[in-house]
Amino acid sequence: MRTYLDCLTCIVQQAIRTLQLHSNDEQWIKEQMDAFFPLMRQVSLELSPPENSLMMYRYVAQVTGNPDLFKPMKEANTRKALELYPRLKRRVAESDDPLLTAVRIAIAGNIIDYGANHTFELERDVERVLAQDFARLDYPEFRRQVERARHILYIGDNAGETVFDRVLIETMNKPTTFAVREKPIINDATKEDAVAAGLDRVARIVSSGSPVPGTPLHLCTPQFRELFRTADLVIAKGQGNYETLDGAPRPVFLLFKVKCEVIARHSGLPKGGIVLWYRT
Amino acid sequence: MRTYLDCLTCIVQQAIRTLQLHSNDEQWIKEQMDAFFPLMRQVSLELSPPENSLMMYRYVAQVTGNPDLFKPMKEANTRKALELYPRLKRRVAESDDPLLTAVRIAIAGNIIDYGANHTFELERDVERVLAQDFARLDYPEFRRQVERARHILYIGDNAGETVFDRVLIETMNKPTTFAVREKPIINDATKEDAVAAGLDRVARIVSSGSPVPGTPLHLCTPQFRELFRTADLVIAKGQGNYETLDGAPRPVFLLFKVKCEVIARHSGLPKGGIVLWYRT
Repeated sequence: MRTYLDCLTCIVQQAIRTLQLHSNDEQWIKEQMDAFFPLMRQVSLELSPPENSLMMYRYVAQVTGNPDLFKPMKEANTRKALELYPRLKRRVAESDDPLLTAVRIAIAGNIIDYGANHTFELERDVERVLAQDFARLDYPEFRRQVERARHILYIGDNAGETVFDRVLIETMNKPTTFAVREKPIINDATKEDAVAAGLDRVARIVSSGSPVPGTPLHLCTPQFRELFRTADLVIAKGQGNYETLDGAPRPVFLLFKVKCEVIARHSGLPKGGIVLWYRT
Repeated sequence: MRTYLDCLTCIVQQAIRTLQLHSNDEQWIKEQMDAFFPLMRQVSLELSPPENSLMMYRYVAQVTGNPDLFKPMKEANTRKALELYPRLKRRVAESDDPLLTAVRIAIAGNIIDYGANHTFELERDVERVLAQDFARLDYPEFRRQVERARHILYIGDNAGETVFDRVLIETMNKPTTFAVREKPIINDATKEDAVAAGLDRVARIVSSGSPVPGTPLHLCTPQFRELFRTADLVIAKGQGNYETLDGAPRPVFLLFKVKCEVIARHSGLPKGGIVLWYRT
């Protein structure tokens, strides 16, 4: 998916939000933004939003001297999600359709706000998502392909969410490779975050090589591209993967929430909708 | 009210939206934005958002060669609102409390989306707003002051909305001066727009002298400042007037909808809430 004009606003907004993780000195942030704005010229409407956001995250890393501003948030989210893990597993075990419940749990991990919430509030949020209707749910096809698959490639999204991904991977119970980002970018899961979520016990963890918050194949390693080509089944989590795997040269199960109007227009799905989409 | 960091994003968003009124060539808009972004340095966190938006609207007027891009929208909105006018008047006449109904109609004019809606849809939207609870409603004080007032200053907001303001002015039935912006800015009402709404039949129309989408007193004419000081009652419509009359040297009845998180935080009122606020 290419970048739309509204994505310019979003990149500016994300720059402010990320700088705010480093400082609450508004005047200092304003000065960093003053120096950042001229860099917006580098954004190309031909590239995907995650690719265009890279220069912004690099700029913020440079002026804050911190390439991993989301580290404390990622660690806290993983810790909170791990506290929920036994209850998530019980929910799957008690379900009439454990695979569908695990799919719902995996999308819940993408949606819930780990922010200041306590575990019991997170659990309530998970229950809410478990009851939510999907805007699109290609479940029969998903179930069929999971049953047949000898090897699954699962492309992760955020840290914390990884614990919820683990529940789905355990429920599918097939040899799985879990792909993470090469280096810290936003709160996306890196190898370290995946291990913290216990994913190394249930999957082989590899870096896609992607330096951006998504998976543009041309920025991935040849090894990852080969894996992407040959896996029986590919599951990609989150909007960043939707944006960068749009038009990919193979079918992918996209599992995400439609978080903005741009994606709603591009996908034809309603904003706020949750989706398991077999994109062929 | 000063400008907050989130207002930077909003100014960028408004620049894009306004350029889109002139052209649907995304690449051209991107190029204008590339040249605009460095100007964001001129935004001062010390000034109000409407004051800071002026350089953006001037830039857009310059690159489009059109200082009144909202003119067709303003004319269409006034025309649609005038079609509703007889029904609005009937609604007031049939009300148990005509003044309160007229206040509600005046805020409805600020909220409804004149966009592509037909008259019957607008009417439905008005009914919705008439039934909506206020987040703050200083109505007893308002009624008391209206009854006593010998002269009311009514500071307008958008064109189209002016027709709804007219209903309130007619219902108050007191000598009223209606203040408009000096020159076209966004869809704010100018003298021409106020006359098109028939406000010249029920009020004296004056320009505040403000070149920005709000009423910063230091940018208004001495005549307007004197009027502002001496009126028995001042009513100011819309968020732009809230932002610029915050801290004004006299009490003002603010009638607006809380349209963004920044105003929600600043006012302590919920986003989406409608307000008749006696700000002393």
